[in-house]
Amino acid sequence: MINPNISVDCVVFGFDGQNLNLLLIEQKDVGQMRRFALPGDHVDEDENLDEAATRVLKELTNLSGLYLTQSGAFGDINRVKNIKDLPWLKSNRQNPEARVITIAYYALVKMEDFNPSASSFANRVFWQGVYDIPELAFDHSKIVIKALDRLRQEVSELRVGHELLSEKFTLTQMQSLFESILNSSFDKRNFRKKALNDSWVIPLDEKQTGVFHKPARLYSWNKDRQSI
Amino acid sequence: MINPNISVDCVVFGFDGQNLNLLLIEQKDVGQMRRFALPGDHVDEDENLDEAATRVLKELTNLSGLYLTQSGAFGDINRVKNIKDLPWLKSNRQNPEARVITIAYYALVKMEDFNPSASSFANRVFWQGVYDIPELAFDHSKIVIKALDRLRQEVSELRVGHELLSEKFTLTQMQSLFESILNSSFDKRNFRKKALNDSWVIPLDEKQTGVFHKPARLYSWNKDRQSI
Repeated sequence: MINPNISVDCVVFGFDGQNLNLLLIEQKDVGQMRRFALPGDHVDEDENLDEAATRVLKELTNLSGLYLTQSGAFGDINRVKNIKDLPWLKSNRQNPEARVITIAYYALVKMEDFNPSASSFANRVFWQGVYDIPELAFDHSKIVIKALDRLRQEVSELRVGHELLSEKFTLTQMQSLFESILNSSFDKRNFRKKALNDSWVIPLDEKQTGVFHKPARLYSWNKDRQSI
Repeated sequence: MINPNISVDCVVFGFDGQNLNLLLIEQKDVGQMRRFALPGDHVDEDENLDEAATRVLKELTNLSGLYLTQSGAFGDINRVKNIKDLPWLKSNRQNPEARVITIAYYALVKMEDFNPSASSFANRVFWQGVYDIPELAFDHSKIVIKALDRLRQEVSELRVGHELLSEKFTLTQMQSLFESILNSSFDKRNFRKKALNDSWVIPLDEKQTGVFHKPARLYSWNKDRQSI
């Protein structure tokens, strides 16, 4: 039995080595225009929130094995009352008038490791550039912005993102990662100075191979780094 | 009308210049032993989550004007099913069997600025040393631990806590703040070196006054500091 008042929504960010993307579904709609949304659905009465997020993501996109973390609860009284959402609610929900509070989860993955495919009420699932998101159902845009804020905070403090680069990487690759997620561009010299002074990385006694340009030095993350 | 499935709980940390404390209430119970809990209650159908947190905290403790931030949603299917919580639920809830998902909020305040007093179903409200918390109702201990983790992360990245010291402070005062919140002790020299090298603070051309010991230099937070 589903709980009519509680749902989960999943904000899955994917990094392709250059750009940050967001996983979206196109919902099966009732003879209408295309309708985009985060993968999300109601929580079952007999499952915990984390379990629900894992199940719902799997049901809609066939993705599993992601590390999903809560990014916030969204419970504005009008969050599912917009007229544009009514046709979908009427054809998909037993009680389309119910107030729904959603618990948002987010994850950051290396896109090449995950191949989503649509099922259940998702018609299509796709990666969309995070700086080019179409209009989304309900308050999903707000949920994305909040998760992106959270992601940026985590990345700028080097708590997540390590696994998006290979074990050994160049400072240029590292800079691309930060630039795409933080949507900023950094001065190359300052970025390098900061990364080394603050001990984010450890220089290795190795250089790139198999490149046409002058091979750059390789680095690895400094796993022992402490912020204080 | 209250929503029987959704509640809010408030984790209010207070710093007294030396130690970190937690705001607790003693609930009015049904002829039983004393029962401690976080200030929390159900959400009304016509209020947003943030509004609910502010209202509930005010109703139970008469505190207002705090900056409350979400620290997580807690929805384990058994979180209000423990036999120890049943008498209270039966005498206080219309549907004591209902599954309740709670949205936790937290705040960090300077204790001297806030004087809580009990009302509604709180019998007493008090500050308790955060490393000496009694047994709490429901899953409130878990909620406290999660909020404390979050607080420590925020403080160690210098995103919160600035307002807990005076505008001008000594590095010893700053170290006390970090030590009490992070529950660690730092080597004095290393701590100072780090605080200055990483530009957390700006040294002022002023020293303490009105102290019997050798006056120490004063500092202010570096508001322009960027992590990256």
